[in-house]
Amino acid sequence: MSSTLSALLSPRSVAIVGASDNIHKIGGRPIHYMQTMGYAGTIYPVNPQRETLQGLRAYPSLDALPEAPELAVIVVAGDAAVQAVADCARLGVGAAIVIASGFGEAGEAGKRQQDEMVRIAREGGLRIVGPNSQGLANFGNGTIASFSTMFIEIPPQDGPVAVVSQSGGTAALVYGLLRQQGIGVRHVHATGNQADVTVSELVLAVAQDPDVRLLLLYLETLTDPDVLAEAAAVARARGIPVVAVKSGRSQAGARAAASHTGAMANEDRAVDAFLARHGIWRVEDAHALARCAPLYLRGWQPAGRRLVVVSNSGASCVMATDTADTLGISMAPLSAATQSALAERLPGFAATANPVDVTAALLTNSGLFGDVLPVVGADPSADLVLLDIPVAGMGYDVPRFARDAAQFADQAGKPIAVAAWQDAVVREFRAANVPTFVHAADALAAFHQLTAHQQLLRDVAGEPTMPPIVRWDSASPSQTLSEAASLARLAQAGVPVVEHYLCQSADEAVAAWQRIGAPVAIKASSPAVPHKSEHGLVTLNCNSREAIVDAFTRQTQTLDAMHAPCEGVIVARMSRGQRECMVGAHWDPVFGAVLLVGDGGKYVEVVRDTAVLLAPASPAAIERAVRSLRMAPLLDGVRGDAPLDVAALCDVAAKVGNLVHQARGQIRSVDLNPVMLGPDGAVVVDGLMEVAGG
Amino acid sequence: MSSTLSALLSPRSVAIVGASDNIHKIGGRPIHYMQTMGYAGTIYPVNPQRETLQGLRAYPSLDALPEAPELAVIVVAGDAAVQAVADCARLGVGAAIVIASGFGEAGEAGKRQQDEMVRIAREGGLRIVGPNSQGLANFGNGTIASFSTMFIEIPPQDGPVAVVSQSGGTAALVYGLLRQQGIGVRHVHATGNQADVTVSELVLAVAQDPDVRLLLLYLETLTDPDVLAEAAAVARARGIPVVAVKSGRSQAGARAAASHTGAMANEDRAVDAFLARHGIWRVEDAHALARCAPLYLRGWQPAGRRLVVVSNSGASCVMATDTADTLGISMAPLSAATQSALAERLPGFAATANPVDVTAALLTNSGLFGDVLPVVGADPSADLVLLDIPVAGMGYDVPRFARDAAQFADQAGKPIAVAAWQDAVVREFRAANVPTFVHAADALAAFHQLTAHQQLLRDVAGEPTMPPIVRWDSASPSQTLSEAASLARLAQAGVPVVEHYLCQSADEAVAAWQRIGAPVAIKASSPAVPHKSEHGLVTLNCNSREAIVDAFTRQTQTLDAMHAPCEGVIVARMSRGQRECMVGAHWDPVFGAVLLVGDGGKYVEVVRDTAVLLAPASPAAIERAVRSLRMAPLLDGVRGDAPLDVAALCDVAAKVGNLVHQARGQIRSVDLNPVMLGPDGAVVVDGLMEVAGG
Repeated sequence: MSSTLSALLSPRSVAIVGASDNIHKIGGRPIHYMQTMGYAGTIYPVNPQRETLQGLRAYPSLDALPEAPELAVIVVAGDAAVQAVADCARLGVGAAIVIASGFGEAGEAGKRQQDEMVRIAREGGLRIVGPNSQGLANFGNGTIASFSTMFIEIPPQDGPVAVVSQSGGTAALVYGLLRQQGIGVRHVHATGNQADVTVSELVLAVAQDPDVRLLLLYLETLTDPDVLAEAAAVARARGIPVVAVKSGRSQAGARAAASHTGAMANEDRAVDAFLARHGIWRVEDAHALARCAPLYLRGWQPAGRRLVVVSNSGASCVMATDTADTLGISMAPLSAATQSALAERLPGFAATANPVDVTAALLTNSGLFGDVLPVVGADPSADLVLLDIPVAGMGYDVPRFARDAAQFADQAGKPIAVAAWQDAVVREFRAANVPTFVHAADALAAFHQLTAHQQLLRDVAGEPTMPPIVRWDSASPSQTLSEAASLARLAQAGVPVVEHYLCQSADEAVAAWQRIGAPVAIKASSPAVPHKSEHGLVTLNCNSREAIVDAFTRQTQTLDAMHAPCEGVIVARMSRGQRECMVGAHWDPVFGAVLLVGDGGKYVEVVRDTAVLLAPASPAAIERAVRSLRMAPLLDGVRGDAPLDVAALCDVAAKVGNLVHQARGQIRSVDLNPVMLGPDGAVVVDGLMEVAGG
Repeated sequence: MSSTLSALLSPRSVAIVGASDNIHKIGGRPIHYMQTMGYAGTIYPVNPQRETLQGLRAYPSLDALPEAPELAVIVVAGDAAVQAVADCARLGVGAAIVIASGFGEAGEAGKRQQDEMVRIAREGGLRIVGPNSQGLANFGNGTIASFSTMFIEIPPQDGPVAVVSQSGGTAALVYGLLRQQGIGVRHVHATGNQADVTVSELVLAVAQDPDVRLLLLYLETLTDPDVLAEAAAVARARGIPVVAVKSGRSQAGARAAASHTGAMANEDRAVDAFLARHGIWRVEDAHALARCAPLYLRGWQPAGRRLVVVSNSGASCVMATDTADTLGISMAPLSAATQSALAERLPGFAATANPVDVTAALLTNSGLFGDVLPVVGADPSADLVLLDIPVAGMGYDVPRFARDAAQFADQAGKPIAVAAWQDAVVREFRAANVPTFVHAADALAAFHQLTAHQQLLRDVAGEPTMPPIVRWDSASPSQTLSEAASLARLAQAGVPVVEHYLCQSADEAVAAWQRIGAPVAIKASSPAVPHKSEHGLVTLNCNSREAIVDAFTRQTQTLDAMHAPCEGVIVARMSRGQRECMVGAHWDPVFGAVLLVGDGGKYVEVVRDTAVLLAPASPAAIERAVRSLRMAPLLDGVRGDAPLDVAALCDVAAKVGNLVHQARGQIRSVDLNPVMLGPDGAVVVDGLMEVAGG
């Protein structure tokens, strides 16, 4: 860990600038927390109005301190905050956390003040967290440089989870949701506007904390993906799952994020691709962030995704089966031996196929769950077990149910999750360290996440390491190449393009057709007209001298009438592919080369059946993505069609991704549509590129 | 209400056959409930072993009672239960509830015993609920003929909700989830195997209870849709929302349902269509069933679906905005006047655009929510208000927040929902009768349900009344008509079919082509070969004598080689439609005529972009369904295409639906694909029908 991050997470001394004697005030709470939650270093309250404060000696200024503190927490606002940062920089303070709001998130003036603050800090070699930050909290050593009220609301307990968030509210919320489940939390960090230190940097630091076993992230913007990628690599190497919310998924959400932390919008599908590429599981909100924690922390590695449902309600069995189906989780086909073992243990009218309904007989035989669980757990087809208890409480021996479930959880080596909503029931199971969810749907969503995330990590492990992302100035000018030039460049890169000739006269066009010896398409090529078909600049299926001369003449006249420069007319072999696909790539200012592949044709923007990956991507990764599309069943050949050459499509996509990646921003975008995909190869029929310059 | 249902829901006397002195036993609990929960009628415990029981005189048999009770609750099992039913029938008991399990849900022998029980009951004019039923509970008059433990777990309070369920466990669960929120419940009924009385019948009865204002249903099978339709009509007339789970959505779920209550599988998309047609909102599980209750019960009728989010966490603002976007709920564009009024009330760094982030300043100014809510509520663009409080508790004046929210709820006439997860916070808001949800995502899902359900009810109000469904013996034989016969039948019904001629010789085919005067398709017509293209029996774009003679000869030879009868060869005008659509209909043994309409073409089964409606359906209802499909954007014309004649497609679908509906089972199915849809009409190009007989 760098000395900066060590100053933030394990400082030997902490100054609070704007300290308060009132433990309920923002300037008072961190001092109170550190004094009561085990901080062993020195606390320096800075407050010119007080001699002492919360039993500690107070100092009138940073300059008056006996030493430069390793960490300063700056609670004062506006110009005073900027001044405090300047003082820290001048005095050689290790790092500062700026709590005050009203900077980059609050409009132009605030943004200027924030920039000034950062400039001063950088000049003095000072790293700052914030402004607009709730602060950092490390319960491993009591460094609670945070004003969150949640640590009073639900007392902390050190544990294996780290929460790193741009938002203080969300950090507190996730902390609370975890603690409510009895889960211990080591780190709760909020970066606010992250004018300097980012979530990514803190994640990289806490991923190296030997006691951390789960990383939960809340991001509003992602500006340094390489740092987060490095953190994710550390986490993968240590077997630590990383789960993230990246908010601002929608346009309205991105606008809201901009006014919250001044967050820059990211291209959302590129965010998806980036997180997946690094094995980070993306969830939609804070509740989902905390949801799967009890399963992750048990460290289970299920062999598959086949589910057994055990319940004392037949209807809950049916509903859980339906929900599992929606999530793509199938029911384990229990063996005949398992079913007859179940029949021995269950009342005659109970269901011994999966789902297993022990019925209301549970009221009179409290041992039924304990009888049934080891039997279903021993069945090789059972990967996951849901114990769904919609009705219990008075009249039921819930402590025994919890013991039986805990024994299974400890011994079977297979994940078990309990669904129960009655507080008293939930408490018994959580006290027994059995992952417990209020809704069966939540439990199943968590099973889905656990198993799909583990599959993602296996996929990522098989991929080459992602090279660092190259930054590019998105404001620099660009130009569109003509189709002829685009196809030439693609062919150079080894991408199969349709046989074609750029012709300057009708005679040349006829000669090209004769060379091809088959029906051709005629397309006027002009860099000024990228969408040709809407202007009548594409004529298909020409197979006679007259047709070709006519098309050539008409198209060149059309371009003339549009005052568009004509580079010539392309005469191209009509392609016989079975499916019109698309491959695209563009250079994202944050994520570098972003690759699209999927269903193509004229309606590509409406049909929207495409996968997004970061490039470079292996053909295997591309094929996994393509196989997840809606069009996937068509690729295998239906209604008498031959199977399509998916490998050829993926090879085109991989080459295009590499081309854009290696151009390091010089190629802004590539748009190939259609890429004609047949049983025996893929060929680019139409292609356009946008490149730097102009 | 019929006398049977009145005997079930408001009996003057109740006998318990198999009564127990132990209030924790199934035979003891109903007696205890009725004695302690206000039942004013006479209770007759029947138990030959006891003189008295729970302070009541016990009787050795039903025959020994001083009168025939209006209701009998039969707790004894197996043959004794059948005998008790026989006794009830003989003695003229009004109705019976059979609690015992081990009948229809438990295999063949149980099914036979159940059938025998029903036969005896029917002969004696006795209606029975169950077997395998948890019983019925009416908290309006204390008739708690149920053994659910949940009424001990969470004490009842009479109120406006009725829960009617095949499953006792789910009835209890939904009761518990409602009571946990402080909502009063009038009816909790479970029908079990419903060998006789169904959920639909009980729903029809409770829909007429003047105090009921919300109906929540759990169904595993639906055998009497007309009764449920009648109940839904009563509910709509009274303004009572009906929400239903119909489980067994998946194949695995349907199998599980069969072993739970012996439920017959329903065609799931027809269930969707049936429920929608009658204004019943379908949800996925029991938690979703209870979720929206607090919003429904406030009786709000929002003008639209535009949302305002107010929170003390900016990140929660962003996440709620993202979630709303996913649900198709847009953010209300607050007026400049509203925003400047907000700016006067909020700290300078707070966000006054929507979402409204009051920031952590809420800690020092507890009036912020109360300041902000009336301002946003007064904005005409605000239809729905979410108050998202991820962090509160100590240091916050939560009672004041709750008062402010309650005042808004009472005065603004616009729905408000609070999202809060801390128990103490939730309690304050619920005590103030403010709809409160643990997750913002749940609150928004409830807003979505409330508004979409109200839209559905408006749509249903504009539709003609659905005629009763005609039953049809699905085991009777059927036959496929040839394409020529199918097209003729369709044309007769006023469906536009492509110009075509059935030809018996190559010469006739050539003559037909000349009559059409344009390129034609040649298709051999045989009732034995419904899928022609896979056998080379379709030749497109023939436009010369040679091509037609060749196609005719080849196709008739192919049919010969397949030993398939040849009805002739169809010569049909090539259609110039822009989009290949599909229209289908079939006769469902439960729901009658079921109509499909959507995207068509060769890959229709893979693309699966179709809507399902019950027929008869109006063209307007069909158009609403078509506009919800993935292909909908294409219908308006994209990339220079002319807009398509959607009305013509809907007219074809309406006619096909009517045709199948009016045939009352004589037409088993109609499959039209493609229906060529152009800017100016729709025409059926290929069509096949299956009809009764054979």
